Amino acid sequence: MGLQRPKAVVLLSGGLDSTTTLAMALQQGFEAYALTFRYGQRHEAEVKAAERVATFFNVVRHITIDIDLRRFGGSALTDNIPVPKGRESVEIAHDIPVTYVPARNTVFLSLALAWAETLGAYDIFIGVNALDYSGYPDCRPEYIQAFEKMANLATKAGVEGKHFTIHTPLINMTKAEIIKKGHELGVDFSITSTCYDPSPDGRPCGQCDACILRQKGFAEGGLKDPLLYNKDGERP
Amino acid sequence: MGLQRPKAVVLLSGGLDSTTTLAMALQQGFEAYALTFRYGQRHEAEVKAAERVATFFNVVRHITIDIDLRRFGGSALTDNIPVPKGRESVEIAHDIPVTYVPARNTVFLSLALAWAETLGAYDIFIGVNALDYSGYPDCRPEYIQAFEKMANLATKAGVEGKHFTIHTPLINMTKAEIIKKGHELGVDFSITSTCYDPSPDGRPCGQCDACILRQKGFAEGGLKDPLLYNKDGERP
Repeated sequence: MGLQRPKAVVLLSGGLDSTTTLAMALQQGFEAYALTFRYGQRHEAEVKAAERVATFFNVVRHITIDIDLRRFGGSALTDNIPVPKGRESVEIAHDIPVTYVPARNTVFLSLALAWAETLGAYDIFIGVNALDYSGYPDCRPEYIQAFEKMANLATKAGVEGKHFTIHTPLINMTKAEIIKKGHELGVDFSITSTCYDPSPDGRPCGQCDACILRQKGFAEGGLKDPLLYNKDGERP
Repeated sequence: MGLQRPKAVVLLSGGLDSTTTLAMALQQGFEAYALTFRYGQRHEAEVKAAERVATFFNVVRHITIDIDLRRFGGSALTDNIPVPKGRESVEIAHDIPVTYVPARNTVFLSLALAWAETLGAYDIFIGVNALDYSGYPDCRPEYIQAFEKMANLATKAGVEGKHFTIHTPLINMTKAEIIKKGHELGVDFSITSTCYDPSPDGRPCGQCDACILRQKGFAEGGLKDPLLYNKDGERP
C-alpha cells in the first residue's frame, strides 16, 4: 500500500491552514513528507502542534529543521516587538502586517525544494492564502508562480525534464471555507495551533491577528472551534 | 566614512570565488554584510576561511548561519558519498557533479534575501560561475534572473517599489580571470579555502574538482597559489 503514490513535501506549521493543506495533499493521493521549521518563534507551541498533526495523519516522514531567523531580526514573530492585539490588529490587515517575516515563505519553500529534489518528489504543498493574508507579499499567486519557475531552473531535476509544482490549494479560499474543507477531510482542529502569542501552557490568546481570523472563520463556517482560549473568559 | 554607502549582503564561503566577489562589491562602493552557512559540510575549514576573509576585509558584520542540509541527504558534500578525485573528477565536469547540493544556492540566496530586507539592503552578491561550474543548474544566468524576479515579488520592499538585484560579477569569468581580478584587488589567497576534502589540519587535498580547478586557474593566470597542498608532494 502506498508504494505507487507520488511523493509530496508539505510545509506544516501546525496551524489550521497547513493542517488542512496536508489533508488535501493526502486526499489527492500523495504520500506526504511533512516539513516544519523552528525558526526562532517565541514559543514552541507551533512545533508541538506540527508533531501532533504529523502523527495524526501518519505521514511517511516528518522533519523539523532549525533555522534561526532571529539572527536577522525584523519581525514581531521573531523579535521582541509586541504582537498587535484587538482593534490595532484588525486595522493593520490592509497593510503589510508587522508580523511579516522577511522572505519567510521563500526560505521555507527553498528548503522544501531541497528536500523534494533529494526525495525524488516533484510536488510541494504550502498553505498560503491570498484573501485573509493579503498583506503578505509572499502569499500572492504571482509570487508562487515566480518561485515555481525559479525552482525548475534551480535544480538538477528541473534541468533534466522533471517539473516541480508548488501547490497552494487554499490560495483563494476564505478562512471559513478552509475550516469547512478541513472538517470534511477529518482534521481534528483541537490539535492545531494558530496563535502568535500563546500562554506558556500553549493556550491561544484569542486577540492576535491569527486568533481573530481563526475565530471569525469558525463562526462564519458554522463550526465550533475546539481550542480553549486564554483571555476570552470562555474557560479558566 | 562609509555612512553614505549602500549596503550589500555578500555570500561568503571562504573560497576564492566568494572572496573575490566580496572584494569586487567593496570596490563598487558597497558596505559589505557577509553571510556564511554551516550547512553540514564534513569539515569546518570553509567556515574558518570565511571568518579570516571577513576579518581581512573588515566587513561591517559577518553572520554564520547553521542550517543542517544533511537532514535531506543527497550530495557528496553533505553525505558520506566519496568525493571524486583525479580523472574521475575531471570526467564529470560535463555532467551534473555528484557534489551538487540540491537547491543549495536557492537556500543561500533566500536567506541572503531575508537578511537584506531586514537591513534595508537591495543588493546581494553571489560568486557563481557559469563556465567552470557549468554542471550546476543554480549557477546559470537564467536561474539568477528567475531568482531576482521572484525576490522582488516575495518581499515587502519589492512590493513597495524597491528593487533587489542579485549581482554575479564572476558569472562569465574563467577561474584564471577570477584569480587575476582578486589579486589585482588585494585578495590574500592564502586565507581562502577551496577543497572539498581537506585534511584534519585544513590542508587541501589537491585532487578534488575544486582543487583541480583552482590549481589550473593559478597556472593559467600565471600566479602562484599560496596554499600548501596535502597530497601533491609539493611540501611535506
